[in-house]
Formats: sequence, C-alpha cells, structure tokens
Amino acid sequence: MKIAVDAMGGDFAPEAIVEGVVMAAAGLPENVQIVLVGKQAVVEELIHKYASASGTSVNAIEVVNADDVIEMGEHPTKALSQKPNSSIGVGFKLLKEKQVDAFCSAGNTGAMHVGALFSIKAIEGILRPCIAGFVPQKAGGYAVMLDIGANADCKPEMLAQFGEIGSIYAQYTLGIDKPRVALMNIGSEEQKGSLIAQAAYQLMKDSRKINFVGNIEGGDLFVNAADVIVTDGFVGNIVFKFGESLYPLMLERGIRDEFIDKTNYEAVGGSPIIGVNGNVIIAHGISSALAIKNMINLAVRQVESDAYTKIAQALS
Amino acid sequence: MKIAVDAMGGDFAPEAIVEGVVMAAAGLPENVQIVLVGKQAVVEELIHKYASASGTSVNAIEVVNADDVIEMGEHPTKALSQKPNSSIGVGFKLLKEKQVDAFCSAGNTGAMHVGALFSIKAIEGILRPCIAGFVPQKAGGYAVMLDIGANADCKPEMLAQFGEIGSIYAQYTLGIDKPRVALMNIGSEEQKGSLIAQAAYQLMKDSRKINFVGNIEGGDLFVNAADVIVTDGFVGNIVFKFGESLYPLMLERGIRDEFIDKTNYEAVGGSPIIGVNGNVIIAHGISSALAIKNMINLAVRQVESDAYTKIAQALS
Repeated sequence: MKIAVDAMGGDFAPEAIVEGVVMAAAGLPENVQIVLVGKQAVVEELIHKYASASGTSVNAIEVVNADDVIEMGEHPTKALSQKPNSSIGVGFKLLKEKQVDAFCSAGNTGAMHVGALFSIKAIEGILRPCIAGFVPQKAGGYAVMLDIGANADCKPEMLAQFGEIGSIYAQYTLGIDKPRVALMNIGSEEQKGSLIAQAAYQLMKDSRKINFVGNIEGGDLFVNAADVIVTDGFVGNIVFKFGESLYPLMLERGIRDEFIDKTNYEAVGGSPIIGVNGNVIIAHGISSALAIKNMINLAVRQVESDAYTKIAQALS
Repeated sequence: MKIAVDAMGGDFAPEAIVEGVVMAAAGLPENVQIVLVGKQAVVEELIHKYASASGTSVNAIEVVNADDVIEMGEHPTKALSQKPNSSIGVGFKLLKEKQVDAFCSAGNTGAMHVGALFSIKAIEGILRPCIAGFVPQKAGGYAVMLDIGANADCKPEMLAQFGEIGSIYAQYTLGIDKPRVALMNIGSEEQKGSLIAQAAYQLMKDSRKINFVGNIEGGDLFVNAADVIVTDGFVGNIVFKFGESLYPLMLERGIRDEFIDKTNYEAVGGSPIIGVNGNVIIAHGISSALAIKNMINLAVRQVESDAYTKIAQALS
C-alpha cells in the first residue's frame, strides 16, 4: 500500500509534514509506503534531518518531485490548471494512475476538492461528494459527521445520500455494524426544522439503505446518540469548528481531559472527501507533525477498509 | 417595576419556579415586584414554604390566579385559544395591559412565541421576531447570538435585521458601545458560505446602522470576536445547544472551570424574544430554581434598558 502525502501543503510545510511522515513511518506495517510529493531536494534533506534525529529508518519513505506549490489563497480551479506540476497536481496524477492508494494534503482545501473531482472524479450516482469529520463520543469511539464544509447549500436528496454513504463509510472504516444514522436538527419531532431538514427527514425515514434513528440536536453531539450525523456543509462546518475550538480553549485554561483531548484536531488529523473514486484526505492548514502522523494512520485504515469501492457498489 | 413569572411552566414547575422566585426576591431592588401567575392556592403554599425555609420576606411577591396550564407538548396556537385562563394566557394579558413590564416562562416555547405575537405583537417594521442567546466570551462578558431557534428558514433581509436589533439590544441591555456585529459563516471572506449568507453579508456590509465586522466561524464563538452574532434559527439553535452541552459534560468528568460555568444555561437563565412590543423571556423546560432566579435578573436589566422601545424607535 502506498500513501501519498503533499509535502508542501500547510502553514508549517514542508517541515511539519516531513516530521509527521517520519513519525508515522516508524509505526507503520511493513506493507505501507509513504510517498512524499514536493520539492525533492528540500524534502529529502528534511527526511534526513528528522530520520537521523529520531533514529527512524527511511526505507518506507519515497519522494516524488513536484516543482510547484499551490498556495493557500489561490483559486482552486485556476491554480490546478496553471500548476500541473504542483504537489497537489502531481499527487492527484499518482492517485488517478493508481500508483498510490491514497492522497493526503494539509494544503489548499478547495484545490484538493476540485483536484479530486477533476482527476479520480465523483462516484457514479453521487450527487455531491462531501467532507466527513470525526466527532468523539463520550462512550468512546467517533461518530462520522458529513458534510463538514464542501457543500454550503444542500438539497434534501443530497442530505439523504450523505446518510447512505456515511453509513457505508462508518461500517467499513470504523467497523460499526448497522450504523445509526441521524439528521442534525432543532428538535426531535419529524416536523421540526428548516424546510430542507423536514424534507430530508422524510427521505431518510423511507430509506431502506440506512438505519435511521431520527433527528439529533446540538446537545446530542457527544453523547453517543448516533454513528453518522447528517447535515449540510454550512451547519457541519460551523459545528465542527466550534467543537475543535474546545481543546485549545481548555488547554489555555490549564485543563487536560481524556475526552477533550479527542476533540483536538490532531487526534484524527484529517477529514476524508467521501463520494469520489479513491481515498483523498484533507487536513487543517495549521497541521502539526502529530496531526500529519495521525492523518496517515487514518489513510491506512481507509485503504484497508476499501470504503469507496463499497460505496460505488452500493450505488451501482 | 413588575416582572410576571409563569409559575406553572417548566418540567419542575411549580416547585422550582417558586423556589427561584423566592431566591430572586431576596436580592431585588425595592422597586421590583414579582407577579407569579398560576394556580393561586398551590403557588401561595409554595411561596410560604420556600420563604419560611430561607427567611425571605414575601412582600415583593404577588400572585395572580390562572386555573389552566398549557402543557409542553400542546400545539401553541390551539392551546392559547382554548386555554385563555392558562398561566401563559393570563401572563400575556397582564403584559398587554401593561400591568406588568415583563413576562417570563419556562413553559411551552411555541406558546410563548405565539402568545407574544398575538398579544403585544411584533414591532412595526420587524420582519420576524427572534430569540436571542448569550454566548460567554473568554475575555469576560457575553455576546448576543440571534436567532437561536424561532426561525429555521431565514431570508437575507431577516438576517440583516437581526444584526440591527441585536446591536440595539447589546448596546442598551449589555451596555456595549458600538457593538461589533458579525455574521456566522464558514470562512472569513465575503464570498464564502451559503447563498443566503453571501447575500446577508452584502446587506450587512452596506448597512449604516451597524458596526459590521464581517464573518466569524465556528471556532470564533468564545474568543471575543464579536458582540452580536447573526445567524438563522437553525444554525443558531444547534450551535447554542451544543455550547450548553459543555457544562454538564465537564461536570460529569469532574471538571469545574469559571469559563465553562458560564456556558451553563443556569448562568443567564433565559432568552429574550426580540422584536416584539415588550419584554418576553423564555427559559429551558428543565429550568432549576437558580435558572429562574437569573432569568428574573435578566428581565430586570431588560426592563431598565428599555431596549424594545429603542428598537421600535430605530425602525420608525
């Protein structure tokens, strides 16, 4: 298995990325190789630096050169067409040609999304690919929330489909049998919420493809009420970022707690784009080495689970 | 000044309501009277019980009889018309006749909302009254978030108006000069977000009535980024309830912290309906005596600030 990582994407790239890759390499199974995509000389020097410091073998790390970098502020579509030799451009080329099994980046999120749509493309039958986030649960484990930012405006059909693909993802990648799928809403009764939420509720209630458990509210996010939390990318993004803000707030106040630690973005490290023909994982621009390490572990789990093929089969 | 309180509304009514009223009475200025609305004999007995237990004088507490109760699950409009002698019905009658200066209830939220619209009515020029919530800020004090649940579907014009009336409310009730008004969104740039958020951004940017500071994201809610946070009642309700879930979660984990304490719903105790011709405050169904006490204190501040008259003047 080969996991490609964009060495140049992120506020602390390439330093933090390479450091995280070296950290991850130390713990990976023998069949996993990491392919760092970026400016070869720079990346190789950093691999050497972090590998010698930690005494890690670098056999599991390969470097593929990419001369360009898509910056954080660049327009995704324009940047991708003008910079085919950017690390994101090259990463998607490798993924499309199946030279790697996953591509991960902490760089320009829009470029990662557009790159996925243009290269490996959406799975046939998918209305809109989306981004999934992991919401820690008090009882342990995580719920999958989707969409957390790709689609600010969603039709009821899109929300219902997020439920289906989130359910398959949770089943295969998180190993949850018959995942409980819930709709994020502002009341438990089915007539509650926005017009779109009300319509989505009916579609989800009638679906035979999911184990629909009804609405959940803002106060239910951490309390093990669902395994899959369906919402649009507007609500999802706001709620998810709110949740991620708890860890730094608590840290600043001198509070450490096992559960709050799990709300730290570094704990999972990445968010998959779901609904495309391959494994694409995006990470925070601010990603630290630890976040990158955990993102790689998530990529490995995802490749092993082969969830995207399962989603494609379910839709065909 | 007279503050009417629904003695019968709430999961723990009338016990917790009367207990909270007695707690509040002990600390109120001499010019403030509380009017408890509910089943007279029951309420008077409870006043006696809690007042003797705490040694509080009950001079400041008046009782107005109401034979009926609107239950939590009842249909608001139907219940109000069928039960004019319910505590909510009588409370709004007192408010409309200006026999009291505010009406507060932890009962059926829908009935409170509909009751306000039918009795004292929306201020002329208000597109939709909304519910405001108080979001504690790291640097101290609170931001006002609106809408937190009255309007699940909002047009851009409604959001822009929430900004205006929230700004006036923050100025007069919280004493904030030129409140910073922000739009809840999923990115800082003006072209970000849902179509409705994008359109609202333009209206708010062009408004001369507010000090618009742009978008804020989910991670900015506690960090003193704004004094007024504008969003629709769908997002606002989810985010607000998520925020309120932190206190019980932390308590369960044995963590006490001054900031987290402020996210406890009991700390403010109530949420005003803004945009109607009077002071109406609703509280959680689960309200404890402490929550009721603090809700009464909020009502007193609101009556003193006369914010609703200021809003009416701004719109006329």
